[in-house]
Amino acid sequence: MVQVMGLSGIPMVKPGDELGHMVVEAAERLGVGIKEGDVIVVAQKVVSKAEGRLIHLRSVKPSSFALWVASQTCRDPRLMETILRETNRIVRMKDGHLIMETKHGFVCANAGVDLSNVSGGEVASLLPEDPDTSAKRIRGHIKELKGVDVAVIISDTFGRAWRMGQTNIAVGIAGMKPIREYKGEKDIFGYILKVTAMAVADELASAAELVMGKSNAVPVAVIRGFEYPRGDGTAKELIRPVEKDLFR
Amino acid sequence: MVQVMGLSGIPMVKPGDELGHMVVEAAERLGVGIKEGDVIVVAQKVVSKAEGRLIHLRSVKPSSFALWVASQTCRDPRLMETILRETNRIVRMKDGHLIMETKHGFVCANAGVDLSNVSGGEVASLLPEDPDTSAKRIRGHIKELKGVDVAVIISDTFGRAWRMGQTNIAVGIAGMKPIREYKGEKDIFGYILKVTAMAVADELASAAELVMGKSNAVPVAVIRGFEYPRGDGTAKELIRPVEKDLFR
Repeated sequence: MVQVMGLSGIPMVKPGDELGHMVVEAAERLGVGIKEGDVIVVAQKVVSKAEGRLIHLRSVKPSSFALWVASQTCRDPRLMETILRETNRIVRMKDGHLIMETKHGFVCANAGVDLSNVSGGEVASLLPEDPDTSAKRIRGHIKELKGVDVAVIISDTFGRAWRMGQTNIAVGIAGMKPIREYKGEKDIFGYILKVTAMAVADELASAAELVMGKSNAVPVAVIRGFEYPRGDGTAKELIRPVEKDLFR
Repeated sequence: MVQVMGLSGIPMVKPGDELGHMVVEAAERLGVGIKEGDVIVVAQKVVSKAEGRLIHLRSVKPSSFALWVASQTCRDPRLMETILRETNRIVRMKDGHLIMETKHGFVCANAGVDLSNVSGGEVASLLPEDPDTSAKRIRGHIKELKGVDVAVIISDTFGRAWRMGQTNIAVGIAGMKPIREYKGEKDIFGYILKVTAMAVADELASAAELVMGKSNAVPVAVIRGFEYPRGDGTAKELIRPVEKDLFR
């Protein structure tokens, strides 16, 4: 059995806060604890807050390009400037929607810049600069405090091609490989499975979302009982290079 | 807490088998039971088997188009013919890979036709003709046997644009809506969330995959403790119409 437990009651996160410590404290207060082999899924938003990846829109001076894009998309030019600074490449721009490739290589709306759950629409949160490093830091801190090895996933909410609705996926990981390979394994009839590679880090992020919701009152989930692929992985392995992408 | 429990020990499924019955039996034998509000996730493969959606390749006569596509992609012409019969539209064909839009409108590799876990590579399984109806049938049967309302999801393994690895998603549902809308709800700061619509049916399918694996020894999972959006939904709501798809 896999258990997915939401950690509620984590205090409002401020820049400089140590999330590993807050996770351990909340898990112990709720009687959940942190155990060897747990997967700790942390919402990007609280990681960004802890790392001070916040920007007051009043401090942003839009470039002329940002002003132009804002006028095309009916968006706040300061928000647009903030989004463009996080962007590697504009993938699509239509009807006020912006699908961007972020500096990390992720493809998502608004380059991961978000006004929700920060402070009422005047402060934007940016994705962590290096979400794998964010995950490693939390993992290291939990190891220090509790002496146990866990996997950590930083999750965010992304839209998708072909399918409606968003799902939570992994933008940073530590202590695990993001993909479970079935290539060469046998099925129940002894037929050798050819090309199954499950993106378990994304599936874990999605499972965690079921207890996290969007109001951000539950920014962390503990997943217990899943034998994740151990090892040093990076969420960058989840980015599909263009030459391997038949789905675009 | 959300619990994800795999139902092992379900006997080999044959055409004509009643899955609702087999699910209830396995759940009771394992001490899991089926409770009001559970989500029952069933792998497409066993649904296809129960519904006789299987085809012996030796019975398939490839068309000249199938022969040509097979020669282009180094695939078995009989398998190619089977795939083409399930296809609405060829989305991409490259390096032996075929991304198809199925008759249902799903975009996936090989139009959902699969040789694994059937019988050693000579019998292909096809997606259920109407996976929502398959889900409804299982749901109705569970209601009959146990008197409880559950949601049922038929899951399959799909690849994705932009991201490596596959995840399990919902191809059929019953007793729930596939998307949880957050539009208009407030975040922790009272900021009104603009456009979050979580594809919870897909997230539930992904969570279930964590206990199902690919060998097919665990074809069903019971998810307990998730407040899914009640109502009559269809997995077709998860298909993104082209005019709303900025991610392609």
